[in-house]
Amino acid sequence: MSRFLDALAGKPVDATPVWFMRQAGRYLPEYREVRKDRDFLTMVKTPEIAAEITLQPIRRFDLDAAVIYSDLLPPLQTMGLGLHFEKGVGPVIENPINTTKDVDLLATPPASETLMYTPEAIKLVKAELEPKGIPVLGFAGAPFTLAAYAIEGGGSKKYEKTRVFMYREPAAWRRLMEKLVTVAGSFLTEQAKAGADALQVFDSWAGALSRYDYERYAAPYTKQLIEIAQKTGKPVVHFTTGTAGHLDAVAAAGGDAIGVDSGPTLTEASERVGGKPLQGNLDPYLLQAPWRELKAQADRVLAEAPATGHVFNTGHGLVPATPPDAVARLTDYVHEVTAR
Amino acid sequence: MSRFLDALAGKPVDATPVWFMRQAGRYLPEYREVRKDRDFLTMVKTPEIAAEITLQPIRRFDLDAAVIYSDLLPPLQTMGLGLHFEKGVGPVIENPINTTKDVDLLATPPASETLMYTPEAIKLVKAELEPKGIPVLGFAGAPFTLAAYAIEGGGSKKYEKTRVFMYREPAAWRRLMEKLVTVAGSFLTEQAKAGADALQVFDSWAGALSRYDYERYAAPYTKQLIEIAQKTGKPVVHFTTGTAGHLDAVAAAGGDAIGVDSGPTLTEASERVGGKPLQGNLDPYLLQAPWRELKAQADRVLAEAPATGHVFNTGHGLVPATPPDAVARLTDYVHEVTAR
Repeated sequence: MSRFLDALAGKPVDATPVWFMRQAGRYLPEYREVRKDRDFLTMVKTPEIAAEITLQPIRRFDLDAAVIYSDLLPPLQTMGLGLHFEKGVGPVIENPINTTKDVDLLATPPASETLMYTPEAIKLVKAELEPKGIPVLGFAGAPFTLAAYAIEGGGSKKYEKTRVFMYREPAAWRRLMEKLVTVAGSFLTEQAKAGADALQVFDSWAGALSRYDYERYAAPYTKQLIEIAQKTGKPVVHFTTGTAGHLDAVAAAGGDAIGVDSGPTLTEASERVGGKPLQGNLDPYLLQAPWRELKAQADRVLAEAPATGHVFNTGHGLVPATPPDAVARLTDYVHEVTAR
Repeated sequence: MSRFLDALAGKPVDATPVWFMRQAGRYLPEYREVRKDRDFLTMVKTPEIAAEITLQPIRRFDLDAAVIYSDLLPPLQTMGLGLHFEKGVGPVIENPINTTKDVDLLATPPASETLMYTPEAIKLVKAELEPKGIPVLGFAGAPFTLAAYAIEGGGSKKYEKTRVFMYREPAAWRRLMEKLVTVAGSFLTEQAKAGADALQVFDSWAGALSRYDYERYAAPYTKQLIEIAQKTGKPVVHFTTGTAGHLDAVAAAGGDAIGVDSGPTLTEASERVGGKPLQGNLDPYLLQAPWRELKAQADRVLAEAPATGHVFNTGHGLVPATPPDAVARLTDYVHEVTAR
């Protein structure tokens, strides 16, 4: 077993495991070298490239898990939504969902026919990391977050269209969410079959909803997705942002461990999730802070973490301005001060 | 006394008072008529126009308070930051704060010399509303939210520059926050002197911070600002968004009443703020929902509200797509079902 998997299971570990969301990404010069003029989706869909990028941070830092280089949105493409990434803008859905008919036209092909580049990449990564005992994490978007992208047509600040659609068309909303559960569930299952040691469900936009709306319009479908993922036997991390006030509802939707953003302290988070193992929750912008501040806040996160069942991570993904040296120093520091 | 002021004081009322953030705004055809090709800042700075716009929703709906037509950002202009509003973009700060020197160059002129168009507008509104017993609310931005605009150069999704500045330059951050307290405090004081019956402090971006950072980098200055505002003898509403997890820290920073966004239920909010009067917290997008859904969620908000000390409002401002008929129906409905 690994520190990472032990911590997810709430077992004691020899030192707190560390990985970072978006640890494979633009802040690394070797990533930018591979990226060059390549299209983002092409990289995600080329197993050799995705595997190489996944391994880059593992070669550089003493991380306790690799996270497969992938994206939340390719599953939407397989359903019939046009997708490309625009520089400086992010993802663009070319034919966003506008009507109930748009929902009914969405396909739900099995991942085995459409999304196998990610499981293939996982196999390549596993071949390199299994001998080293470093687990690999697969992931998928939660239904609400996928629906928000599909309806807004990309990122959003307010998620107005999503909420208005959900309020006005509750029956179509349910059909949409069920289709997303099918597609994301199939994707997670294939990742587990290919060797992913753990699976993370990203409900990155769950915080746009009130507790009430979250419980009614989002959580039931996340629960279905997590149950499908757990059937693979792999532990599932359930990650959300902006939900500090109702982490109890997040935990009730499932997950072996709960990914906590930077909002709450881990002490309050632990209380709200009934003592489930936690992953998080350092503010990723702190990696751009002087060491004095970064160290103080890492100490704080560790002091607030539960005695067992904590995976150190940032509360959101690492951003492009992150200095690689800060990642190295922080990773080593967490291992050092938590060694027992 | 008015229902609104009584509710802010936690006293029993004959029916729950209602007003809406951005009740004077783009969703009203008569607003768009006044607006036409006028520049937004020119409207804010012309007392007759600002007064007229403030009164528009009061003529149409049975609202229990008027909120002065103004904006969070003109105080930044008086400090030396260039400001204009771009269509489809929002506010643009032309010379955002980048260095500690930029902070030290900021002026802190008294509002009596620079911002009197808003107090003048309040006087005009008061002349019309005082005989009708309808109170007028003045407002200003909280230091953190103003600093975030000044550093990001406008709106932002992540507030990366703000956080990195705050972490890297804690001494300059403190000087910036103190200057913002001075300017916003002076502005609120002049609004109270002109007749504002209550004052609201908007910390719209407070939710970008972790509890720890909020308590250390934002709350102490909000506290100073609220103390200045309370010296006028007028009640202060302290509004934040995205802070459901640490509303106790928000309440500790002060305010006679706490403005609650759509995140938490009012039951949990009341618990976290130690029973202070609350204002909120219907999701503003619900006004675009069918009445069936809008009514159900208004019922829910009212059922979760404390028995005394609740001002009905949305959790954020009304958006341009809000149907005026929904505002009318909702306002009357809240009055009707809470009449005692």
